[in-house]
Amino acid sequence: MDKRIKKIQSYLKENRIDLAFVTTPDNIFYFSGFRSNPHERLLGLVIFQDIDPFMICPKMEVSDAKASGWPFDVIGHSDTDQPWELLANEIQSRAKEISAFAIEKGHLTVERYEALQSRFPHVRFVSIDEQINRLRVIKDEVEIEKLKKAAELADFAIEVGVNAVKKGITELEIVHIIENAIKEKGCSMSFETTVLSGPKAASPHGTPGNRKIQKGDFVLFDLGVVYEGYCSDITRTVAFGEITEEQRKIYETVKRSNEETIKAVKPGVRCMDLDKISRDIITEAGYGEYYTHRLGHGLGISVHEFPSVAGTNELPLKPGMVFTIEPGIYKADTAGVRIEDDVVVTEDGVEVLTKYPKELIIVR
Amino acid sequence: MDKRIKKIQSYLKENRIDLAFVTTPDNIFYFSGFRSNPHERLLGLVIFQDIDPFMICPKMEVSDAKASGWPFDVIGHSDTDQPWELLANEIQSRAKEISAFAIEKGHLTVERYEALQSRFPHVRFVSIDEQINRLRVIKDEVEIEKLKKAAELADFAIEVGVNAVKKGITELEIVHIIENAIKEKGCSMSFETTVLSGPKAASPHGTPGNRKIQKGDFVLFDLGVVYEGYCSDITRTVAFGEITEEQRKIYETVKRSNEETIKAVKPGVRCMDLDKISRDIITEAGYGEYYTHRLGHGLGISVHEFPSVAGTNELPLKPGMVFTIEPGIYKADTAGVRIEDDVVVTEDGVEVLTKYPKELIIVR
Repeated sequence: MDKRIKKIQSYLKENRIDLAFVTTPDNIFYFSGFRSNPHERLLGLVIFQDIDPFMICPKMEVSDAKASGWPFDVIGHSDTDQPWELLANEIQSRAKEISAFAIEKGHLTVERYEALQSRFPHVRFVSIDEQINRLRVIKDEVEIEKLKKAAELADFAIEVGVNAVKKGITELEIVHIIENAIKEKGCSMSFETTVLSGPKAASPHGTPGNRKIQKGDFVLFDLGVVYEGYCSDITRTVAFGEITEEQRKIYETVKRSNEETIKAVKPGVRCMDLDKISRDIITEAGYGEYYTHRLGHGLGISVHEFPSVAGTNELPLKPGMVFTIEPGIYKADTAGVRIEDDVVVTEDGVEVLTKYPKELIIVR
Repeated sequence: MDKRIKKIQSYLKENRIDLAFVTTPDNIFYFSGFRSNPHERLLGLVIFQDIDPFMICPKMEVSDAKASGWPFDVIGHSDTDQPWELLANEIQSRAKEISAFAIEKGHLTVERYEALQSRFPHVRFVSIDEQINRLRVIKDEVEIEKLKKAAELADFAIEVGVNAVKKGITELEIVHIIENAIKEKGCSMSFETTVLSGPKAASPHGTPGNRKIQKGDFVLFDLGVVYEGYCSDITRTVAFGEITEEQRKIYETVKRSNEETIKAVKPGVRCMDLDKISRDIITEAGYGEYYTHRLGHGLGISVHEFPSVAGTNELPLKPGMVFTIEPGIYKADTAGVRIEDDVVVTEDGVEVLTKYPKELIIVR
């Protein structure tokens, strides 16, 4: 933790910024080890150039925050306090002259920004978002170990789901079986488990329901597991009973897109290059218009984080980056197929964290 | 839906605001019937004074948005589009001269605000938050019916939880049994189910773990269920085996605080008055310092919404307001007790939606 705070302190010094106010719960976990969802209440870390940082949190969470290992001050506010007043006083008692104040522009609301502006009227507000993203985007060995465990659990969850496919079972019943199996291992899902069948699989963001699985369906599983604060995210699609020639062609196209793109991952390649490789394969097969989303997204403490693996992102890959590779084809009335893996960029290539097979599985 | 949009349109006209940009997912559900979590992608409704509103959403959700019953335009953006450019173009093609632009200052991030400011440089940005809260805070009959169903399901979930209490069972195992029972009814929880026992019950925001329930423990259940988009939120605390005199005193104090406060609910009483009634009872019993949070919070599409039932809120109650009454005492090493109900303000008093008994239950 301390190393991470030191890196922010160096950045502040180099850029002559007096302090950084960190408010995203996932970033607070990253810097402090304290995980909390404060809802509408104020939770934040204040990091200065040279002096110790402090945390401000709801009073009732002070003891949990201290128990999480954060060694610095924790300032609690109750529901009748003026938390912004308290925050301003705590800052001013520590740092007398403030000219540049870094905030998370991608997280702080306009309302909160205005609350800060009114208390620090002559201060220049700058963004710390990119610098934190730049830190978080490179995972260290401990983080990669946790992501591996999370991916192993995701493989196991897919196996449980595929084994549950049978005539008459509903999407929600399969969700239920998968989530129970993960709970029995003492873990939780990183987002709401998705099981979609037949025509519903062709909606990339559909919701599982009481539809019974039928012969000739594709069944799409999209799920993830949290292991010690780190998320996995996997998608597999299996067939139930015989499928048509075109369904098979769509499956094989997505599989090839996934596999060829993974082969191309290595330091220096840009995010947009990967997106293009995956998209060209699908376009050449005649399904370009049915691949309606970016290739993937970063993965770590958040299930969606940097980098965005999209056609517009020029960021070159570096060792330690972890993201998803998840091409899909969603053709209404025909098929919905997505195949998603989690990968980490290594010194000379790539390691795939999710290992569940990708050969077309036909459940009979 | 349409009636709700008309109310915003009237407000825009009266206040000479050209348009409102609504971005909170729960508010989008309120106005459109479309429920979606867009993660980092842009999702919004633009409501004008006189012309039809439109929705902007990720391209892959366009068909779901249309299927949800929204009768107006849906503009999809893909991951390679510039969504803010698209939004600005759509607005400018519909409304030529814009001088005042309402945003949700409590939701819109500074980054997004700056994206809008750069595209509408000479525009005055005002807040629409309070007006939407003022609409949502009064529930109509259809909404209250849904909240009643959600509360019934919460009562049922508590019953399942209390029945599961036995020697050797862990907190997480009870969570698991409760959540399965709700899933079997085709519903989901409105937040992560909390079951805390013994010393952990004394942490108002603790996380369930593998602690085994022991004789002499209080077991605290805090949970809620979503019914057709509307949330319940209930807390009950039961004893496992014999408890001490002081534990019993704490329980009875919280129960009295809960019950006397509920009796005081009627139109015209202010939120802060209710908080004071509940707090005075606990303070007089000598536990004031262990009641570390506000009395309650509004409930509806969001599990935490307006009004905040806190000691600083002067808002007078009106018929149709729905909120929680949840006093608690958290005394480390002795007891943690909270008793929470959901109530609706009626024309002449109050109706309690959650009905699970509050007499001290001792599970043997």
